Amino acid sequence: MRVLLVGAGGVGTAITRIAARRSFFEHMVVADYDPARAESAVAYLGEDERRFTATRLDASDAAGVGAALAEYRCDVLMNATDPRFVLPLFEAALAQGAHYVDMAMSLSRPHPSRPYQECGVKLGDAQFERAEEWVAADRLALVGMGVEPGLSDVFARYAADELFDEIEEIGIRDGADLVVDGYDFAPSFSIWTTIEECLNPPVVYEEGRGWFTTEPFSESEVFDFPEGIGPVECVNVEHEEVLLIPRWLKAGRVTFKYGLGDEFIGVLRTLHKLGLDRTDPVTVSSAAGQVAVSPRDVVAACLPDPAGLGDRMHGRTCAGTWVRGTKDGAPREVYLYHVVDNQWSMREYGSQAVVWQTAVNPVVALELIASGAWHGSGVLGPEALPPRPFLDLLTEYGSPWSLREGAHG
Amino acid sequence: MRVLLVGAGGVGTAITRIAARRSFFEHMVVADYDPARAESAVAYLGEDERRFTATRLDASDAAGVGAALAEYRCDVLMNATDPRFVLPLFEAALAQGAHYVDMAMSLSRPHPSRPYQECGVKLGDAQFERAEEWVAADRLALVGMGVEPGLSDVFARYAADELFDEIEEIGIRDGADLVVDGYDFAPSFSIWTTIEECLNPPVVYEEGRGWFTTEPFSESEVFDFPEGIGPVECVNVEHEEVLLIPRWLKAGRVTFKYGLGDEFIGVLRTLHKLGLDRTDPVTVSSAAGQVAVSPRDVVAACLPDPAGLGDRMHGRTCAGTWVRGTKDGAPREVYLYHVVDNQWSMREYGSQAVVWQTAVNPVVALELIASGAWHGSGVLGPEALPPRPFLDLLTEYGSPWSLREGAHG
Repeated sequence: MRVLLVGAGGVGTAITRIAARRSFFEHMVVADYDPARAESAVAYLGEDERRFTATRLDASDAAGVGAALAEYRCDVLMNATDPRFVLPLFEAALAQGAHYVDMAMSLSRPHPSRPYQECGVKLGDAQFERAEEWVAADRLALVGMGVEPGLSDVFARYAADELFDEIEEIGIRDGADLVVDGYDFAPSFSIWTTIEECLNPPVVYEEGRGWFTTEPFSESEVFDFPEGIGPVECVNVEHEEVLLIPRWLKAGRVTFKYGLGDEFIGVLRTLHKLGLDRTDPVTVSSAAGQVAVSPRDVVAACLPDPAGLGDRMHGRTCAGTWVRGTKDGAPREVYLYHVVDNQWSMREYGSQAVVWQTAVNPVVALELIASGAWHGSGVLGPEALPPRPFLDLLTEYGSPWSLREGAHG
Repeated sequence: MRVLLVGAGGVGTAITRIAARRSFFEHMVVADYDPARAESAVAYLGEDERRFTATRLDASDAAGVGAALAEYRCDVLMNATDPRFVLPLFEAALAQGAHYVDMAMSLSRPHPSRPYQECGVKLGDAQFERAEEWVAADRLALVGMGVEPGLSDVFARYAADELFDEIEEIGIRDGADLVVDGYDFAPSFSIWTTIEECLNPPVVYEEGRGWFTTEPFSESEVFDFPEGIGPVECVNVEHEEVLLIPRWLKAGRVTFKYGLGDEFIGVLRTLHKLGLDRTDPVTVSSAAGQVAVSPRDVVAACLPDPAGLGDRMHGRTCAGTWVRGTKDGAPREVYLYHVVDNQWSMREYGSQAVVWQTAVNPVVALELIASGAWHGSGVLGPEALPPRPFLDLLTEYGSPWSLREGAHG
């Protein structure tokens, strides 16, 4: 397998470090708009590691990406950029006859008149409407293959296959007890993206009703996360799993709740109340005269860059899928989850826990595609493919998953 | 009396409207850096009102202000600008032999090493250290003569003169139930100034200990405001009364607590936690490239301009002085207060309630100076002068004050 990895940010860089320990691929081209980032990711792997090449690439230029796929004879494009670049990369892979893997799907647009009741354009819609073309080309577009979406969808399929006869509800629940030393307030992830995720109308799926949206921060609950993380306040957030799972699995209800915690939820509510979450510019005075700036950019600029906080952070992050239903006529409830400890990921890979947890899953998926254990054509979510090989290989990567039986939510 | 009014913002404009109904002065020159603001204030009064003249003046230019005092033969300078201009205006009046009235005193600077324990430069220090010169010139600098400070200090003196034998504590308590229709969150006053006030270390006075500072938002209490406003969460805020009252009155403790309410206090705490209260610039991208902006300016730019909200606002604002002590050997507790209803002030004067309440008090003071009921030389606070004539004249202006007997705090 020859891979074109587009994006050498935190997750892309962690992908190179995880992949470097595996033998399933022949070559990986590491491409970034900023060639220094790509070169730095490759240099970190050492001189003896010759399977990686750094190059410059503009992810918004589908033709340029296609040319790179051809030049380096890559059979799969691994997208590790931000969601704005999903479509050009997805199209470049299709045009070039390469497989495609991403970790976030094409963006949504709220319903024009009833944004908090009805879906407008949904996450991934622009990709699923091209599914026939991928089938016709006999190529696989594996979408939403990070940790959430990604591993969380694999868990859902595993629950449906092996743990339940009928499923009433599937709820992805994400929480952490990560703390950054030395700051009053320092989110361990981009506040810009978190605002975007949390203020988009959250989407919920119900059998019979289909997909619908709610107000931001709806259906607050306290979920008890395992391995000492403990109870964290969670709220509905727009996320790919809710759009992916019902396409392949039967469940009465599907939700995604993000364990932001009451402090962070309070901060986001305040930013929203004051209009500081807006991206449309406001005019303010500066030493250079009147300038127009996006309030959300200013909020991000006031906080430390989370990419540089890995070595000041401690704690664990937990991604998982809570399922409620029946098995052999009896009610059952399980939480399938994966925890990464930041001290472990920093020591082992020099990668922050949230970033590492996102990166390990697409590498596992690439290895399954390379071996043929995962194969198919069209636009598929992770729950469309057999879960056992994935979960076993993840454990082989040194990062096992767990199952908690019973109601703890 | 001939008055040079400097500043034709909200309060300055309301001063012209209140003064126009009184006959105690011969002429009032309305000066502003922006001549359109001065002209608009004068034009509002109508063609028959010939006692007002608009002019342009830079309040930071003491020589220019002195020249205007001379040109218009003014015997008093009424400062209605923001506190940054206190010193040049105060000096211009002294140099020109005019009396001086302001509504906020020269600014403080925190203690360099123990900002939340000890005072650095206190509010008004730069004015009080010039007191001898005012005495020598036989001119009066009446400082802190708005509503708070101002009327609140008159109440304190009235309580000391007529209601108590001994005073254990004087606490200024300011609260409102003003609501702006059509906004999620719209403060009825400048958020920039409110952040400044609330994040400066609050100052407290105790007999024997003197002045000292605390952490922001300290000593939170719920004070029950009269006339249906009801209970509002109040916290310590740096304010002039705490510096003024102990110079003339004997009290065991003096505090100022601002009834911001739990929602507003939560917003300010969040802004502080995120560093969005900062005035030092952060660098962000804009359409014009990288620019440096003050986060606090961006916060202010995201909110509606409170000056334009008067006609969308309803409710009342209450300023007052709570006093606890003994009279004739028995414990006593009173709250002396002044309430302005926004619908009334908008209808009667076209001025928002908070602005009108600030503006009426210096006009009453000017009338007392004109009549000779208030006279003196040096730098004096309102509590240095007899309170009865002031309180009676305020009632005559159609805006009576009240006394609540007993503990309701």
